[in-house]
Amino acid sequence: MRVLAMLDGNLADPEGRHLRVDDLGLMRGDGVFETVLVVDGVPRELGPHLDRLERSAAMLELPVPDRAAWERCVRLVLDTWSGPSEMALKLVYTRGPEFGDGTPTGFAMGLPIGEKVLRNREAGVRAVTLERGFDPEIVSRAPWLLLGAKTLSYAVNMAALRWAEAHDAEEAIFLAADGSVLEGPTSNVVVAQGRTLRTTPPSSGILRGTTQGALFRAAEREGWVTKVEPLTLDDLTEADGLFLASSVRKITRVHTLDGKPLPDSGALHSELAALYESEYA
Amino acid sequence: MRVLAMLDGNLADPEGRHLRVDDLGLMRGDGVFETVLVVDGVPRELGPHLDRLERSAAMLELPVPDRAAWERCVRLVLDTWSGPSEMALKLVYTRGPEFGDGTPTGFAMGLPIGEKVLRNREAGVRAVTLERGFDPEIVSRAPWLLLGAKTLSYAVNMAALRWAEAHDAEEAIFLAADGSVLEGPTSNVVVAQGRTLRTTPPSSGILRGTTQGALFRAAEREGWVTKVEPLTLDDLTEADGLFLASSVRKITRVHTLDGKPLPDSGALHSELAALYESEYA
Repeated sequence: MRVLAMLDGNLADPEGRHLRVDDLGLMRGDGVFETVLVVDGVPRELGPHLDRLERSAAMLELPVPDRAAWERCVRLVLDTWSGPSEMALKLVYTRGPEFGDGTPTGFAMGLPIGEKVLRNREAGVRAVTLERGFDPEIVSRAPWLLLGAKTLSYAVNMAALRWAEAHDAEEAIFLAADGSVLEGPTSNVVVAQGRTLRTTPPSSGILRGTTQGALFRAAEREGWVTKVEPLTLDDLTEADGLFLASSVRKITRVHTLDGKPLPDSGALHSELAALYESEYA
Repeated sequence: MRVLAMLDGNLADPEGRHLRVDDLGLMRGDGVFETVLVVDGVPRELGPHLDRLERSAAMLELPVPDRAAWERCVRLVLDTWSGPSEMALKLVYTRGPEFGDGTPTGFAMGLPIGEKVLRNREAGVRAVTLERGFDPEIVSRAPWLLLGAKTLSYAVNMAALRWAEAHDAEEAIFLAADGSVLEGPTSNVVVAQGRTLRTTPPSSGILRGTTQGALFRAAEREGWVTKVEPLTLDDLTEADGLFLASSVRKITRVHTLDGKPLPDSGALHSELAALYESEYA
């Protein structure tokens, strides 16, 4: 079950051929995307996702996304979906064909959550730390590196996940050149210590997390302290719990880091998962 | 005039829609490419380009490209072309649709050389140096960064060229975190000093240059010394001539770097351009 709607407001066959070969999204990875979790027909954090799509598009100097058109496109997928109660909704926006009329390409596609993601949500994951190569202090002075934009140029993110899978792990966590913690290839890092939740700052060149944001809102309401600040590898290994947050993962527990078991965070995971869900109750 | 041939051996309408939206080349920039210069129906450095396509594909763990199929696909474009004497021939190879049968996507597209490239070949260019963020010594220990693979994830390369154009330049030259010179977003750096040509080493995480390689072969035959070794920014500004080499650019002269005029290298440029052309005489 997959549902595809183009940004022009029309449904399309998800197995059909809809893109030109000279689409710059393909030729140059020159576009942006979002993945939204939909539960029982209700998209979670759609506003923050569309906000981030707009910020990413601005960083790539793409035409400003037509928010009303995106909302209609999303609505069309939601209204057409007859699959499982949970859906991953991908929003993709590219610079369009190189030899076209300048119209960007946009579409929304709904698909079921993958088996592996569902399994990892329950069982937790093993993660490896991988060097990402840049120093956080370069972010503000080198905007051409597009750090913090969610672009289609994800070959490195995919290679990092393949590397993890080839090395007895399901996930990766990137470290900056100065050793500080960045993010997962498609997730944010959250650590819990006592009644404090911490995550790494967008100023270090990572994506602002929508799911992490929802979790922190819920946690603050329940009296947790939340901090957005640089984290070290020691912060990850010494925490009561280490988690990866993303739309489709929700809050997934890391039980093993670089081959070493972390403290049992099963009960903590249940508590945080419930906090996150309480945002949508 | 554009000619499109798919890797399955069929010609296709270059304005047509041939790709699924879930092609991982689009969704994840998960694929590789090459751009080959064709002059009077003869592709230049096709062997080295296909070699590099294979190396890039291996770094991304893509299926091994079918060399005979690629050669047939290229031949089909060449035999169909009726445009200008010079053609840019793009070869694109992706992991294929995420929800497909595992068949990679491949196509070759011939198109005329852009006006801007032709103008720059004649007039030379202004270039700006831009930080790339990583240290060359990370290359060998972090293969997941795909440094040295020519992937479709080129959003940063495109952003660097946009940055250059917004800052009174036509080209960019990336510098590593240690200050050493890397490459242009879509070219290699070559400096000439006396009768010595130098370029930066692939071990620093750059692409091995096919056009630079052809120039060096020709130069060696004529008694020049060639060196592949790390270069500093001073090496660029103090050279007799600074050049960017790529298939479509051929050997393009940089006359201004970071806003400062470089020594007049017009005569040197003519000599190197003739050397390069002598490879195909």
